[in-house]
Amino acid sequence: MSSSGYTSSGASTPSNGSRPSSPTLGTPYVKLADRIEAKIDRGERWFSLEFFPPRTPQGAANLISRFERMVQGGPMFMDITWHPAGDPGNSDKETSSMSIACAALNYVGHETMLHMSCCNSTKDDIRRHLDKAKELGIRNILALRGDPIVGDEWKYVEDGFNYATDMVKFIRAEFGDYFTVCVAGYPHGHPDSPTYEEDLQHLKEKVDAGADFIITQLFFKAERYVKFVEDCRRIGINVPIIPGVMPIQGYHSLRNLVKLSKLEIPDEIREAIEPIRDNDEAIRNYGVHQAVTMIRELFDSGLVNGLHFYTLNREVATIQILKQIGLWTEDIQRPWPWKRTANYNRCEEEVRPIFWASRPKSYVYRTQEWDEFPNGRWGSSESPAFGELNDYYLFYLKPNAKKEELLDMWGHELTCLQDVCDVFTNYITGKESKNGKKVRKIPWNDDDLAAETSFINDKLARINSRGVLTINSQPNVNAAPSTDPVVGWGTPGGYVFQKAYLEFFTSRENVQALFKVLPKYPNVNYHIIKFEGDDDYTNCDQQQPIAVTWGVFPGKEIIQPTVVDPVSFKFWKDEAFTLWTEYWGQLYAEDSKSRELIQHIHDTWYLVNLVDNDFPRDNILFTVIEDMFAEADLQRAKGKGQTNGVNGVHHDDDDGVFVNGAGDVPKNTCAEQIQRNVEADIVHAL
Amino acid sequence: MSSSGYTSSGASTPSNGSRPSSPTLGTPYVKLADRIEAKIDRGERWFSLEFFPPRTPQGAANLISRFERMVQGGPMFMDITWHPAGDPGNSDKETSSMSIACAALNYVGHETMLHMSCCNSTKDDIRRHLDKAKELGIRNILALRGDPIVGDEWKYVEDGFNYATDMVKFIRAEFGDYFTVCVAGYPHGHPDSPTYEEDLQHLKEKVDAGADFIITQLFFKAERYVKFVEDCRRIGINVPIIPGVMPIQGYHSLRNLVKLSKLEIPDEIREAIEPIRDNDEAIRNYGVHQAVTMIRELFDSGLVNGLHFYTLNREVATIQILKQIGLWTEDIQRPWPWKRTANYNRCEEEVRPIFWASRPKSYVYRTQEWDEFPNGRWGSSESPAFGELNDYYLFYLKPNAKKEELLDMWGHELTCLQDVCDVFTNYITGKESKNGKKVRKIPWNDDDLAAETSFINDKLARINSRGVLTINSQPNVNAAPSTDPVVGWGTPGGYVFQKAYLEFFTSRENVQALFKVLPKYPNVNYHIIKFEGDDDYTNCDQQQPIAVTWGVFPGKEIIQPTVVDPVSFKFWKDEAFTLWTEYWGQLYAEDSKSRELIQHIHDTWYLVNLVDNDFPRDNILFTVIEDMFAEADLQRAKGKGQTNGVNGVHHDDDDGVFVNGAGDVPKNTCAEQIQRNVEADIVHAL
Repeated sequence: MSSSGYTSSGASTPSNGSRPSSPTLGTPYVKLADRIEAKIDRGERWFSLEFFPPRTPQGAANLISRFERMVQGGPMFMDITWHPAGDPGNSDKETSSMSIACAALNYVGHETMLHMSCCNSTKDDIRRHLDKAKELGIRNILALRGDPIVGDEWKYVEDGFNYATDMVKFIRAEFGDYFTVCVAGYPHGHPDSPTYEEDLQHLKEKVDAGADFIITQLFFKAERYVKFVEDCRRIGINVPIIPGVMPIQGYHSLRNLVKLSKLEIPDEIREAIEPIRDNDEAIRNYGVHQAVTMIRELFDSGLVNGLHFYTLNREVATIQILKQIGLWTEDIQRPWPWKRTANYNRCEEEVRPIFWASRPKSYVYRTQEWDEFPNGRWGSSESPAFGELNDYYLFYLKPNAKKEELLDMWGHELTCLQDVCDVFTNYITGKESKNGKKVRKIPWNDDDLAAETSFINDKLARINSRGVLTINSQPNVNAAPSTDPVVGWGTPGGYVFQKAYLEFFTSRENVQALFKVLPKYPNVNYHIIKFEGDDDYTNCDQQQPIAVTWGVFPGKEIIQPTVVDPVSFKFWKDEAFTLWTEYWGQLYAEDSKSRELIQHIHDTWYLVNLVDNDFPRDNILFTVIEDMFAEADLQRAKGKGQTNGVNGVHHDDDDGVFVNGAGDVPKNTCAEQIQRNVEADIVHAL
Repeated sequence: MSSSGYTSSGASTPSNGSRPSSPTLGTPYVKLADRIEAKIDRGERWFSLEFFPPRTPQGAANLISRFERMVQGGPMFMDITWHPAGDPGNSDKETSSMSIACAALNYVGHETMLHMSCCNSTKDDIRRHLDKAKELGIRNILALRGDPIVGDEWKYVEDGFNYATDMVKFIRAEFGDYFTVCVAGYPHGHPDSPTYEEDLQHLKEKVDAGADFIITQLFFKAERYVKFVEDCRRIGINVPIIPGVMPIQGYHSLRNLVKLSKLEIPDEIREAIEPIRDNDEAIRNYGVHQAVTMIRELFDSGLVNGLHFYTLNREVATIQILKQIGLWTEDIQRPWPWKRTANYNRCEEEVRPIFWASRPKSYVYRTQEWDEFPNGRWGSSESPAFGELNDYYLFYLKPNAKKEELLDMWGHELTCLQDVCDVFTNYITGKESKNGKKVRKIPWNDDDLAAETSFINDKLARINSRGVLTINSQPNVNAAPSTDPVVGWGTPGGYVFQKAYLEFFTSRENVQALFKVLPKYPNVNYHIIKFEGDDDYTNCDQQQPIAVTWGVFPGKEIIQPTVVDPVSFKFWKDEAFTLWTEYWGQLYAEDSKSRELIQHIHDTWYLVNLVDNDFPRDNILFTVIEDMFAEADLQRAKGKGQTNGVNGVHHDDDDGVFVNGAGDVPKNTCAEQIQRNVEADIVHAL
């Protein structure tokens, strides 16, 4: 056999030995303009939703909540108007256009377009606004001339922005293709334009300057839109023209809007609503009917795939219309175990620590400065830079509830630890609290309990009532179909897996008992830490995150979107403990017992996470907890003869007896007394 | 509730938003010196094996095979002597010290030490050798003065290397801590040293210059070693001193060695072997007994953890000794599904394409220039730079067998395709070929069949006999314990998974039938390609590798060591097809029918891989193949009335009838005739 070799023809660049970096399983970002074109190519229908910035911070919080509900229906994008009088580009102001658009994109997590008007603005103003939008991840701009602030007249400005066309040109010149640019079309002609034809020419100029698509001003008759599109096509405007639809929702709002846009209300509409002008519900029903009828005509014209809704910041009418025309599609299939965000910077993001599972906005906020997101797996997190939570953003991250509501849920007065336990227990069981209110949220959860929690609800309720205050958990899952309605996620045809997870606050006494029993469960990973971080125990390698949710899909590598990471846990620990005092404790007067109780938990309790690695077997974590309770009872019985108290207790390795050391809280504080009472209660309850 | 926020104390560097790159689950490289120290600290025993470079290429191939067998026993490292007369630093020469050490490290995949002597060498020579060793990944050097080439006298060279100490200093000065440096100790004193004490001082100088540990020259009595160690410690030599043990394996070899090292053979040994001097086996048995006795005394001294064996390139005696003293530990637990290599550059390597599963040396060779290895997952392989296989390295990559042996296995004459099919079938079943020889290898497999293949052996044999020539396969595995003796790998306590995989060559006719049946199996991924690459069909996204082996372990992210990657498959395709002609076809005369037959397969057959994504269910791939056979039979029956022939057949989508197009091989070639015969045979056999 000859020793002559052969060469492989496929070697591309043998001299460059490096493999390409940054591989990705994530979805590459596709520009909105391209997605609209793709929808048109495939003949698929879609819709978008327009909102305006609210005037008050509470209004902003309410609007964000509304966004959360409305993205469930699957809009192509959210659209935020520019409110020139509201300091619109100031991202430090909660109610600015920029802030609302940022929240919609990054925290609600949906593709977002931001209006921007250039009237009476300098180039520097506009550049600054566009730079800020880019920095926040916004990639879609609706370029408008805008109206002068009331009282001013529109004036031609030399070397400034006189028309939207100037702004489109400016965006393309300064930002290239970064932004998808939309412009407004006026089926009735722009009110300031001398003629309809002249306005069409202006529109053509805007498109020729680089606009990707057009959204029309509102109109009341389908034929108006059809004529407009035909007129546009006739003069060579070939980009998509999306009809803007405004559901009539009230007599006065309609009148105002029509006045502003200098439109005439068709007689038949006027005649229909005049008789019901004082009946809001009747008008809304009429509006839904009118819009649905018009939309059907639009679809029948064959010219329309997408619809843009002027929601006027309301949801009922728009959702009714969308449901009636079959475009409201609540997709029960989760695309990912956690809510992805639409920011193009994060389209490769594939892994998150489980700790923020119930506080995704906080996670998004704290990682917004990352250059790269974990992709494929978490890997080493030796020094992940988690940003700090500052005042302003807390506004969006806080539960959207008033102090009174929170007190109703969490207790106007806390007399003992059992009161705290009851809040957690009621949250899980859905039972009403003493004062007859349901506990719909706790400080550690932005949203309702995950559906899958129902698998372990009874067990969770039981351990919470005994002082294991759970803030996060998931059951184990072994090769469930990816289409499973409760635990499934991702594309069909795959299999999903979970390791059982439990995260809770509990007292020092319980933790000491836990240490006694953990050696019996070698396949359980634990991480136990106090607020100060001085007590920090784990059997995980500091470098090794644990995958706790993963999926196996046809034609793909393993996807592992959720991990328990010992390093990130320390950052989460700060946040989790601080929520006790900042969200809950602050509800009470400074020297109140309630507040002292919360402070006591913050100062002396531990945050614990447990992972059961034996995912194909029954979840062992509740057995561990029961074992811990039994051990704690035993120790309590043994310690009866000694000085009572839980503070400053040290663990004696020799005989398992707890010996009291110097307390770090003054003797006989309220908190200590409360703790003793609870212990007595618990012992009694057994 | 106050809107004042809080800050997380844990944020380390909020201004630096980047996460750390290059996370790893792999084992970080630990220097040999540190590993030896760790063994001593833990009181664990170990051994190392010394070999010398052979004189001929065939000898080198045999030695590499011997390495493969001997690393099974778990040596701490392999040690290759420096052969000054054999162009030792020339890595382009198959038998050089450098090449053998490189093969041991990179292709056998085991930690390796290379001797290097400086006698009569310039600094440039030594620097070049060390640079080359570093380039190849060698990190351990045994620094020697060395002996002048026979006939020369040792001479002091001004500003040159006169003693091993000079070389140790040079290595430390030029390469810092990169190399673990070992030096030789002489329990009987160096032959050129005036006194034993003076030699001890030289050894102290070597250690003070930076040597990490000492291996002793051979000795015959444990007390000699014990005294030597005591003497070393007395003068402040504190590094580990590893006893060098030479099993007596033959009368003449012993005499030669003793003469070279100027040692005296103790009387009791001389008296024992003189009577059996012509009985090699008796001498070897004596040598084993003598060594085991001495080693036990060494262990009893309490001074010894590790043993260094002068194997003299033989394996029987050393293995017997190691087994008797309980150090030969064949670890049945696979640490990884594929054989890792010891090169420190690759210690983070965690993923490989399955294609090279049976040709790991080729994979290591072709990827040796990579700067980074896939870690955690394969990711995008848009342009992986697979190096070419050149003449020289084929030497190590080729099956270590003579032409006659290969012809005995693969057939001295191939008369029809069935002969080829029989080779594959016999390889799988272990049956003897026509001429009574077992087929122990095929060109695509370096090693014996994997144990797990036995799960599907019957099915493999059946489809190979019918012209589906399998070169790689694995069964599906659903959550087997990681300690499973057949499919397990990794640390205990984990669960391992596999997707069923099948890779084979088959004829165009079969591939056409396969395309007919594949739509019935949507959860099967396929990739089908011809040598030229002009026909290339897959239902995998080009960017998406498929994980086919993965493991879930306590406290870790998911480990996915094997993937099917569409891009790498094209590189493998070149290699796989070329093996037909270069390894098999070249065995036959240039114009022989046998050679033409192999060439025909190379030119017209397809390479196919199939992945069954439904790993929790029964392996569907053999059902797919049977379905393909049935479809092919149907088409063959339909096509009977038409012109026979398989070349240039085109697929008619309308009615599924195959129509003959223009053939790319002349009509009525031998190959075509053979193909027809096989078809007839196969049809007949049904």
